[in-house]
Amino acid sequence: MATDVPEQRQTRRGREARQAARLARAVETLPYLTRKLAPVEVIATEGLEQIEHNADTLLEQVGIEIVNYPDAVEIFRLAGAEVEGARVRFPRGMCRALINATAPRVFTQRARNEARSVVIGDPHMVLVPTYGSPFVHDLDHGRRYATIEDFRNFVKLTYTSHTLHHGGGTLCEPVDLPVNKRHFDMVYSHIRWSDRAFMGSVTHPDRARDSVDMARIVFGAETLETEHVIMGLANANSPMSWDFNMLGSAKAYAEANQVMLITPFILGGAMAPVTVAAQATQTLAEALAGMAFCQIVRPGAPVIFGSFASSMSMQTGAPTFGTPEPQLVLFVLAALSRRLGVPFRSGGNFTASKVPDYQAAYESAVSFMATMQAGVNFNLHTAG
Amino acid sequence: MATDVPEQRQTRRGREARQAARLARAVETLPYLTRKLAPVEVIATEGLEQIEHNADTLLEQVGIEIVNYPDAVEIFRLAGAEVEGARVRFPRGMCRALINATAPRVFTQRARNEARSVVIGDPHMVLVPTYGSPFVHDLDHGRRYATIEDFRNFVKLTYTSHTLHHGGGTLCEPVDLPVNKRHFDMVYSHIRWSDRAFMGSVTHPDRARDSVDMARIVFGAETLETEHVIMGLANANSPMSWDFNMLGSAKAYAEANQVMLITPFILGGAMAPVTVAAQATQTLAEALAGMAFCQIVRPGAPVIFGSFASSMSMQTGAPTFGTPEPQLVLFVLAALSRRLGVPFRSGGNFTASKVPDYQAAYESAVSFMATMQAGVNFNLHTAG
Repeated sequence: MATDVPEQRQTRRGREARQAARLARAVETLPYLTRKLAPVEVIATEGLEQIEHNADTLLEQVGIEIVNYPDAVEIFRLAGAEVEGARVRFPRGMCRALINATAPRVFTQRARNEARSVVIGDPHMVLVPTYGSPFVHDLDHGRRYATIEDFRNFVKLTYTSHTLHHGGGTLCEPVDLPVNKRHFDMVYSHIRWSDRAFMGSVTHPDRARDSVDMARIVFGAETLETEHVIMGLANANSPMSWDFNMLGSAKAYAEANQVMLITPFILGGAMAPVTVAAQATQTLAEALAGMAFCQIVRPGAPVIFGSFASSMSMQTGAPTFGTPEPQLVLFVLAALSRRLGVPFRSGGNFTASKVPDYQAAYESAVSFMATMQAGVNFNLHTAG
Repeated sequence: MATDVPEQRQTRRGREARQAARLARAVETLPYLTRKLAPVEVIATEGLEQIEHNADTLLEQVGIEIVNYPDAVEIFRLAGAEVEGARVRFPRGMCRALINATAPRVFTQRARNEARSVVIGDPHMVLVPTYGSPFVHDLDHGRRYATIEDFRNFVKLTYTSHTLHHGGGTLCEPVDLPVNKRHFDMVYSHIRWSDRAFMGSVTHPDRARDSVDMARIVFGAETLETEHVIMGLANANSPMSWDFNMLGSAKAYAEANQVMLITPFILGGAMAPVTVAAQATQTLAEALAGMAFCQIVRPGAPVIFGSFASSMSMQTGAPTFGTPEPQLVLFVLAALSRRLGVPFRSGGNFTASKVPDYQAAYESAVSFMATMQAGVNFNLHTAG
């Protein structure tokens, strides 16, 4: 009845036209950015060489403690490292040589929609949503624990974003699901509600293997032998330590020829000294060990050199984000990554503020400017 | 009676100790910043050379229209420019040669408190409060026209700031005072309520001379012959025009050996084409003419190459601030200024938002990052 009213038909045609226009516009989205400006440098070559030298000294003299993972110790020993219990020490240059020999400078992570596959490495920049928050905030309920329904919504939001290039991974932590099954629902959501490239679980090596197995179902097992379709993110247990869950997950991804993002997560003053130079040195040492591990497990499996450096309040111990020092660390590590010859991940829109206020914007803007100017290749925490 | 209570005496001593600590801290304030990082470059030398070439073509073929100021036309003619009515055309390279011959690369603006004198030019950065707003905003009355009482308060606030290095000029426009007397109260406020370096009036050549005369009373007439104690800010009437008030005021400051800040104020799309290259070219041409004028009037009088480039909404004509294009203009003009060999002014914390919200913070942060990274020497609109 109402459909016979001419005005309403006109309105419908108008709406359809607008929908068509919106769909047409979506096609124009770039799959990733390609940088034309030279990266901003804050340190001269001699400074970078000194940091590299000192990182090798750390690896040689202090070494890395491998927590609860004798198999990894044995893997390192067979590759030439010196082992003393759970402590692994690396002859000077060993990790760098392993990485240089086989890790790709640039690689493609294939998405289900191949138009959305991303090229990771210089001079490209892939913008990725935020990762790992256990809390979400909405206007109706304020700050609360995240659920799998939130996770699905973030997958859909990311899917429809014009400025994000990658589906991300743990878009939030769906704490309404048990930890040992959560990863199935998360990976499934990425596959079901998006056609972008995505990340799998790393909370246990078994869950990492489950994630890779799900990717095999979607892309075909043989595809994974030649292409990279899923990524895992391992954080070191700084200072100078890697544990079973992280390195075991790294092994699961690398064995399957998939992408491993090796990221020391360092709050200056807590897991490293407070100075920029020391944070950069320790990050490089820990990341070298992690990336070398992947290359021993499967030469040629793609790795990304990651840094998540931030500061903390030395009075309260509270982490602070968006402060100036981590941006200097970012610039330094981006330069070190270029010298090493692997893609680099860091940065994002960081703030210590819990609400979208003036502080949140100012800190985010300054952090993200550094991210863009340093030429970061894989930008986790861009939005969300 | 109450003073005999021991607790209160303790409190007083505590307060005195805190006051003493605060005063001691104030002494540590730096008079200006000295940059150690190389400026960020966004354009190669060939691009800069092309902009310089095109600016000379503009000056040679289009020329500058001198509005209502035949004396300035005559000054330019005697220096070698070609005159046709109010239109002045410059032989290629003439303005640059005049500036190169006598304008200082670096100079000191003396403050009443000599510990607060500022060195203007590479590698130094002087942070200066905002300039020229007719409106102020407070929690009690919201947005309203500014008064001389507001002006005095801004002088005092600037005086007590640890991060601003200069007293600034028109901290707000005190519209409760008649325009033809306003400058006396403004300059007096800078002298009475602060000991920092400051700026005088440019709204009419007579008022510029009044400002310089007041500086003579404070510093002594002979001081001005050898030192620079006051600064004026002239905006071109873009495109390609300078008028009587601006150039007449520039003459007043230059004649007295004082500092002239020559700043084309260009909204892309309104007073210049919208492209970054065109805005940079036109800004350079207009500024070259203005700075050359000062050098003809008094060789060696300090000039600062200024750029206030912003964008505007091409739908409504509203000015927009804090957008990306002006930051590219800023980087390009900073590089051109280094090649010319004069101090550079631009940037600040810019936003199109009228309130201190998320947009204001994000736009301000991104604008100010560009300001700092480009190595701007005199940063008007840092705060306020």
